[in-house]
Amino acid sequence: MKVVEARVTPVAFPDPPLLNSAGVHEPWALRTIVELDGGDGLVGLGETYGDAAHLAAVRRAAERLVGLDPFDLSAIGTATRRSLGAGDHALKVFAPFEVAALDLQARSIGRPVYQLLGGRVRDRVAFSAYLFYKWAQHPGRPADEWGAALDPAGVVEQARALVQQFGFGSIKLKGGVFPPVEEIDAIRELRRAFPSHPLRIDPNCAWTVQTAKQVAAETTGLLEYLEDPTPGIDGMAEVASAAPMPLATNMCVVSPADLRPAFERGAVGVVLADHHYWGGLRACAELARTCAAWGVGVSMHSNSHLGISLAAMVQLGAATPELTYAADTHTPWQGGVDVVTAPLPIVDGAVAVPDAPGLGVELDRDALARLHEQYRRCGVRSRDDTAYMRTVRPDFVKRRPRW
Amino acid sequence: MKVVEARVTPVAFPDPPLLNSAGVHEPWALRTIVELDGGDGLVGLGETYGDAAHLAAVRRAAERLVGLDPFDLSAIGTATRRSLGAGDHALKVFAPFEVAALDLQARSIGRPVYQLLGGRVRDRVAFSAYLFYKWAQHPGRPADEWGAALDPAGVVEQARALVQQFGFGSIKLKGGVFPPVEEIDAIRELRRAFPSHPLRIDPNCAWTVQTAKQVAAETTGLLEYLEDPTPGIDGMAEVASAAPMPLATNMCVVSPADLRPAFERGAVGVVLADHHYWGGLRACAELARTCAAWGVGVSMHSNSHLGISLAAMVQLGAATPELTYAADTHTPWQGGVDVVTAPLPIVDGAVAVPDAPGLGVELDRDALARLHEQYRRCGVRSRDDTAYMRTVRPDFVKRRPRW
Ligand SMILES: [Mg+2]
Ligand SMILES: [Mg+2]
Repeated sequence: MKVVEARVTPVAFPDPPLLNSAGVHEPWALRTIVELDGGDGLVGLGETYGDAAHLAAVRRAAERLVGLDPFDLSAIGTATRRSLGAGDHALKVFAPFEVAALDLQARSIGRPVYQLLGGRVRDRVAFSAYLFYKWAQHPGRPADEWGAALDPAGVVEQARALVQQFGFGSIKLKGGVFPPVEEIDAIRELRRAFPSHPLRIDPNCAWTVQTAKQVAAETTGLLEYLEDPTPGIDGMAEVASAAPMPLATNMCVVSPADLRPAFERGAVGVVLADHHYWGGLRACAELARTCAAWGVGVSMHSNSHLGISLAAMVQLGAATPELTYAADTHTPWQGGVDVVTAPLPIVDGAVAVPDAPGLGVELDRDALARLHEQYRRCGVRSRDDTAYMRTVRPDFVKRRPRW
Repeated sequence: MKVVEARVTPVAFPDPPLLNSAGVHEPWALRTIVELDGGDGLVGLGETYGDAAHLAAVRRAAERLVGLDPFDLSAIGTATRRSLGAGDHALKVFAPFEVAALDLQARSIGRPVYQLLGGRVRDRVAFSAYLFYKWAQHPGRPADEWGAALDPAGVVEQARALVQQFGFGSIKLKGGVFPPVEEIDAIRELRRAFPSHPLRIDPNCAWTVQTAKQVAAETTGLLEYLEDPTPGIDGMAEVASAAPMPLATNMCVVSPADLRPAFERGAVGVVLADHHYWGGLRACAELARTCAAWGVGVSMHSNSHLGISLAAMVQLGAATPELTYAADTHTPWQGGVDVVTAPLPIVDGAVAVPDAPGLGVELDRDALARLHEQYRRCGVRSRDDTAYMRTVRPDFVKRRPRW
């Protein structure tokens, strides 16, 4: 089997005004959908970031994949690396093709992807409710279904809605938006409202080491883990030495080169794997093995994404014994919009691992065309939470740490 | 596809009197051949140790595999673990079944095993000449084709024969047999005879830290790596801090739990992977990723083995970019005896990676029956180099370190 065509389609879909330490989500989220067409109706799917520079890199890589064997990940990796321009991120460009190749491999042999990753170790992959401070609406647009969440009460209300709708068994709050004291209050209110849900907060490095230590002390007994409280491995190590809970990260351990320095300094207790930047599902499975050998836990990171990435995360989670924390997902914020015909549903806080061949989802070509048309018209070409925030608050400055 | 039968066959084959720090190889080497029969003529092959206790454990595990899907390595692992008795080594018992399952998977889809391990990164897998001090013959038996090697001249002669016959491009000496000064002399003579071949010596922990440091100093510039000079991670770390060459190991890093302490103390610069005790080919590929992230090199370890294990090592080597050292193999010492119809040949010091489905070797059922018959008759049931040595030198004591 050879790849007869490698298709790359940018898409856009509505995104609520979710706040974070860098600013606020723009009205449109971007993704790039990748198809490796093996002929005979067999198509492997992948999904990655939609920023213009990355899209261009993915397109350049795609051109080199025609004629390659989807089972030859090594050749796909080599072709991808050869296509890179200065500034392109090799593993990020490779990742959607790795996923698509695994999907195509698995479909061609009529087996689920998890069987190519070592076999299924669980039947359901748990996800956590991913709370965001948010505005009631994008400026000048109607309010969305979720309403505002700008204080502890709003956060708890949002959590109730998400837990009710999806049955989430654990809860993460994206922090770094308000002064720490307010976010600690939100955590306390969440604990009161959800006495037994594991809680996490992720301020995206918005805090100094000193602030992070203080927050850690004040949230003793409240948090399953504290995610990226402060920038850098050294800062994280300093916080970790004082914090009563494990520190988690998707910011200071983002490539194999970070593992040794971070682990040797005890900077992190949990790594959030993300196949989009670690270079695919196999790389994440391998990352999990390494974490386990160092006694470091594994969770999963998410950006705004669609159903192909969700399915990929589920396949990885199905085959990764070391994944012992509920994974992040932005799925609820996409309001059911998707490029797959039947998105894998989150029920009771988890996705049942599909036994269908490949990733277990099928491309909805009409939806793909619709979301691509949205991409063409929406005007957004690169995600810039900070610039968008400045259109509303001209004095906003991205600062890490801020407090 | 299901496993319809899991066959386990112990075999014995003649082994020359190779010396090491524990004693001397007995006249018969033992292995266990594993077959996972998927029906329709599809059989996956594995090979492991032949000691009685291990054979019994492998047999117990095999009984539980019938009816399992060979693509479900997770279920095979679970079944294997459930079969274990006290003292059984889970990863050692699992390993031959993992290899056999991968072979069966690959055969069933008509693809080489390396495609299930991430794809081929090289066309040839290099092996090193594996020199042994040896007697001219087993006591009371005729001399073998190799003759004695009991001093530097004998070692060089053996190296010449091996390099001539197999084209090896690097050379390893199994040491720990004679006082270090004599073995250093052998290394010096090898360097004279082979000015550009990378050289290694492996005394199997026969030296104290002080002796190891001294040998390291005296062999400065002569060795590609120094393998297991002294016992234990602490001892290795102490030697490593003084040695000018990397230390390699297959003795102090033998399971995932050893990685962190060994790497954090800088005890080793090269890990010799061995799928027989790391738990299979996937586990070794993952081990290699971890080593790379810590800047630790990867080579491959070997015990006396037959052509199934050689083929498995070649598949692993084909798919493992991190394997940058020529691997060990005892193949030349088996004198062409094998259980496969066409053993992969070592030419110019390397095995060309086969493109045939599966491991790339086929079971020779006549040979299997013959070697099993030898097993039945030979009387050896567990390898015991020390006890055999004592039959010749009653005062011999295994001591690590000895010097
Ligand atoms: Mg994060
Ligand atoms: Mg050794």
